[in-house]
Amino acid sequence: MEGKFEEDIGSHHHDPCVEIAMEIHKVETPPKRSSLQKLKNRLKETFFPDDPLRQFKGQSTKQKWLLGFQYIFPILQWGPHYNLNLFKSDVVSGLTIASLAIPQGISYAKLANLPPILGLYSSFVPPLVYAVLGSSRDLAVGPVSIASLLMGSMLRQEASPNLDPILYLQLAFTSTFFAGLFQASLGFLRLGFIIDFLSKATLIGFMAGAAIIVSLQQLKALLGITHFTKEMGLVPVMSSVFHNTKEWSWQTILMGFFFLVFLLVTRHISIKKPKLFWVSAGAPLLSVVVSTLFVFVFKAQRHGISVIGKLDHGLNPPSWNMLHFHGSHIGLVLKTGLITGIISLTEGIAVGRTFAALKNYQVDGNKEMIAIGVMNVVGSTTSCYITTGAFSRSAVNHNAGAKTAVSNIIMAVTVMVTLLFLMPLFQYTPNLVLGAIIVTAVVGLIDLPAAYQIWKVDKFDFVVMLSAFFGVIFISVEEGLALAVGISIFKMVLQMTRPKTVVLGNIPGTDIFRNKHQYKDAVTIPGFLILSIQAPISFANSNYLNERILRWILDYEEEETKSHSDLRFVILDLAAVSAIDANGVMFFQELRRVLEKKGVELVLVNPVGEVMEKLQKADGTHDLLQPSNLYLTVGEAVSSRFSSMKVVSC
Amino acid sequence: MEGKFEEDIGSHHHDPCVEIAMEIHKVETPPKRSSLQKLKNRLKETFFPDDPLRQFKGQSTKQKWLLGFQYIFPILQWGPHYNLNLFKSDVVSGLTIASLAIPQGISYAKLANLPPILGLYSSFVPPLVYAVLGSSRDLAVGPVSIASLLMGSMLRQEASPNLDPILYLQLAFTSTFFAGLFQASLGFLRLGFIIDFLSKATLIGFMAGAAIIVSLQQLKALLGITHFTKEMGLVPVMSSVFHNTKEWSWQTILMGFFFLVFLLVTRHISIKKPKLFWVSAGAPLLSVVVSTLFVFVFKAQRHGISVIGKLDHGLNPPSWNMLHFHGSHIGLVLKTGLITGIISLTEGIAVGRTFAALKNYQVDGNKEMIAIGVMNVVGSTTSCYITTGAFSRSAVNHNAGAKTAVSNIIMAVTVMVTLLFLMPLFQYTPNLVLGAIIVTAVVGLIDLPAAYQIWKVDKFDFVVMLSAFFGVIFISVEEGLALAVGISIFKMVLQMTRPKTVVLGNIPGTDIFRNKHQYKDAVTIPGFLILSIQAPISFANSNYLNERILRWILDYEEEETKSHSDLRFVILDLAAVSAIDANGVMFFQELRRVLEKKGVELVLVNPVGEVMEKLQKADGTHDLLQPSNLYLTVGEAVSSRFSSMKVVSC
Repeated sequence: MEGKFEEDIGSHHHDPCVEIAMEIHKVETPPKRSSLQKLKNRLKETFFPDDPLRQFKGQSTKQKWLLGFQYIFPILQWGPHYNLNLFKSDVVSGLTIASLAIPQGISYAKLANLPPILGLYSSFVPPLVYAVLGSSRDLAVGPVSIASLLMGSMLRQEASPNLDPILYLQLAFTSTFFAGLFQASLGFLRLGFIIDFLSKATLIGFMAGAAIIVSLQQLKALLGITHFTKEMGLVPVMSSVFHNTKEWSWQTILMGFFFLVFLLVTRHISIKKPKLFWVSAGAPLLSVVVSTLFVFVFKAQRHGISVIGKLDHGLNPPSWNMLHFHGSHIGLVLKTGLITGIISLTEGIAVGRTFAALKNYQVDGNKEMIAIGVMNVVGSTTSCYITTGAFSRSAVNHNAGAKTAVSNIIMAVTVMVTLLFLMPLFQYTPNLVLGAIIVTAVVGLIDLPAAYQIWKVDKFDFVVMLSAFFGVIFISVEEGLALAVGISIFKMVLQMTRPKTVVLGNIPGTDIFRNKHQYKDAVTIPGFLILSIQAPISFANSNYLNERILRWILDYEEEETKSHSDLRFVILDLAAVSAIDANGVMFFQELRRVLEKKGVELVLVNPVGEVMEKLQKADGTHDLLQPSNLYLTVGEAVSSRFSSMKVVSC
Repeated sequence: MEGKFEEDIGSHHHDPCVEIAMEIHKVETPPKRSSLQKLKNRLKETFFPDDPLRQFKGQSTKQKWLLGFQYIFPILQWGPHYNLNLFKSDVVSGLTIASLAIPQGISYAKLANLPPILGLYSSFVPPLVYAVLGSSRDLAVGPVSIASLLMGSMLRQEASPNLDPILYLQLAFTSTFFAGLFQASLGFLRLGFIIDFLSKATLIGFMAGAAIIVSLQQLKALLGITHFTKEMGLVPVMSSVFHNTKEWSWQTILMGFFFLVFLLVTRHISIKKPKLFWVSAGAPLLSVVVSTLFVFVFKAQRHGISVIGKLDHGLNPPSWNMLHFHGSHIGLVLKTGLITGIISLTEGIAVGRTFAALKNYQVDGNKEMIAIGVMNVVGSTTSCYITTGAFSRSAVNHNAGAKTAVSNIIMAVTVMVTLLFLMPLFQYTPNLVLGAIIVTAVVGLIDLPAAYQIWKVDKFDFVVMLSAFFGVIFISVEEGLALAVGISIFKMVLQMTRPKTVVLGNIPGTDIFRNKHQYKDAVTIPGFLILSIQAPISFANSNYLNERILRWILDYEEEETKSHSDLRFVILDLAAVSAIDANGVMFFQELRRVLEKKGVELVLVNPVGEVMEKLQKADGTHDLLQPSNLYLTVGEAVSSRFSSMKVVSC
């Protein structure tokens, strides 16, 4: 840092017509690389931005193998250091999440129109798989509300869970298989960035909408209605509810209301005091036990309280014979797998990242995708439906002091014991308590403070959020999501087609040039129009930029007629033009030609390496890149060209 | 411009540890605007970048009406100044393009599987409409090869031109109607930028592919095959040609070869000497006359030479009763209208812009779209199929000295005379000469020099070009086009998800910081990692940027262990971050939190107005935007923080 400014403010402050002597620095081209090297570099930046193989560098072959195995099976990394203290913590947290997982599993399976026991199957095998492959220490794995809702609503389009339960099961397992395959492929092909297209705004709107749709479905259980609509939207559900008022059962409503209030209060307590996490974690199981006992003792099922009924017991039966990869439903199954796969992946990765950031460890997104994907593929062959890391359960796991994925193993063992011995106890569990558990769980998905924050920061994002929300509520869960993603991408493309161009002015007393709109002090240099283009120049915007720059020139000329000075130079600051394509090259050639006809010179400032290279290649005679038309900074360009002006108008 | 550098090179050249005294300039926020003002401004930039109402400002009401009428009907602009000299030029060029339009019209109609006379109808009404509404002085309007091919190949999917000619005609007129409606709406809604998505590379590949497909279709006429495939692809056409060798007619081949060579030679002459434009312009008509006479005199139609046969005559009959807006074909008709509409619009606008640039006048893209759209809507009710400004014919028009759209009127009148009186003369015109005319016309669409230029400039664009080319040849015309557009947009989105981040270094002897990779002299300042982010930060890239910056830090730390200096500051140069969204705001908050844990400070440099505003709104406590973390230039940030470092490691 040897350069210094010698300040010279005051005397010339309102007289910009001062000759400036300044050393001129050369604009350099980056070192030559072949197209192959460039391609390699581009691919690395695209697919391996996190450089996952960094740790393998400079290791012995044996060490590389070991690291490789540890990379694939993270359990080999932390397993050898596992000790009794960690185990104690994991047992406590494992039992805690099991007490939550069992009632939630049964409830969510019902949300997906599946037999309740599938919720427990899905809380047994997948957590074991994840414990071996996953790299998050806090993720509690199992079925989740939104993926269950999605699967239920999508599969019901082609198969009735009541009329054709076997077909429905086949579709569920096959979709789960495809979801897992898709998730693992995303991770394996390092295409994990696809889930980034679900922006924060989209997710908040989508989750809130889904929470309302899920809660509305629970009105069936909470009001005791028997003839409930099979549709999901706000309008059909409300109309179904109010057209069947005579089916409402006051006993159900009373009991449902009681448990709902109880669960919401315990939830509120745990939010206020995170140390009391066990209050909300234990409440669902307590509610199930109390309500089941109540029904059993008072024979309430004879008084309009509907109960789960007889359940199977025993461990997960194999289900690979239920997977069907052909036939007329393959389209639906692929679509369901794709959508539930992406949504559950988004939840799982977000949960993993959140808790990793809290505890300051790294979670590799692509690796997690493979873990979650393999877990679902294995799950689909062992009677499980789609699972992922659940937000609420992972929070409980974290608060309960989970140290490693062993807490998932403890949970799985507890669920196993339940499956083997305790299933008959659920026979008298009333459906209303499952409804209350679901509503309590999904209420947390409505994040009003985040919505307000988005309103404050970005109105367009708020529109995206609202479109996801209303799309889910009034159209359908998938279409609402697609709508929001579509609008987000449309905005991005629109941003590319309409890049910003700003007029720069000189900040007095410096050789700094900044946006004249933002910096009110910045002054125009007579005879110079200085523009900064702030996007890659490509086919999508080269026509626009041409028109826009000509308009800036017209604007300038209108002002000029007042100040009697002619436009002599258009200086383009290209610092922010990170790339150009063939159309971009033509844009420069065309602009130069048009300006020449007007007697105006085009000067380029600070092009990045790629832009330099492409202009050189296209421009045989190097007209655009003559030394007198190419500068390192706007200041140098102005001072050099200013001194070369023969007649200065002032 | 009062600031000056006082050069100080040499002594400190290899010792970057020098205290720097420098005045610090404040980063300003742009003047406050309401969300509504911002929205208004954004909409203006998106839809009215060319400020079309500029000329209306400050005019009297009467003047405004006059300007308004002139705006809608450009003929009112140039009409009053029209004189005999202009008329003489226009008559010459009008007659020249008529001699080209008549044989081409007949040929292109056959390419679209339509009755030949439709090609003449379409060269009569649309040019008259364009003369009133269009603002280009050089455009010669009529049917064109690619749109004809597209319409023919798409409509044949659902209707046979031979078995059900009435239905086929109905579909053609209705598609033309929708194409026109769509074109006019694009212009009216100022969505003209949609055609920008057809990049130069896409168009070159597509046109070359289409030229080959079109030429292949002419093998039927040029070889005299009667049982020709109805498919378009390279493979089925070649197999059809070589499976029917016994249908080849040597008389046809000989005569076809003769006229093809003749036409290609005349084309070559006119390209070499533009003054001899009339050689290639007159050759098709001459070929038609000579070949027709030949057939008539020698009764060649009895010797295997197929001829057009009896044609209708008379002016365009009305066809609004043929338009059908419902029924089972509506989907195909809409799709055909959309695709042929966009493609022909692209050709028309490109032609208009090219010649306007040559003669230095402006063509308003959106207005041209309305003109072309209205022309097609009117055409669809007067037995015309889709028309636009044709490249080859407009070039002839330009070379023949056309001054205004009156040359289109002269052409239309000539065609009218032909329709009324000369149609019986075409009865003996052999099909082979039409095939030769088409091949000669489309050969010019294969632009090898442009393809080579694209290969030199941008390898990715070259891939886009190839995919359009091979897609058209091997898959289908529409799908090849869709493929190339899809790849182009995918590249754009990928560019957004993987923005460039570059490490900056100080250029010795200055306070300028530039890409260390591009400027080999640039030196690192110990303790500082200076990064420039070169894209808007949004949901699509915030996760990537986070990972990538952490990797830069790891890279830095690896080097550091060698040089024994700790990373103290991460400076982000935000000059090129033209916008952020809600995810972008979170990116900064998250990055700051992570860096804090590492004991590293985050310093922001030169954020643009919008970024400043959003960070302020999101960041209640202004942690991110404290004066000590926010600077106007990288130089100021470094010098200020450098002097604040208590312990300097050197």
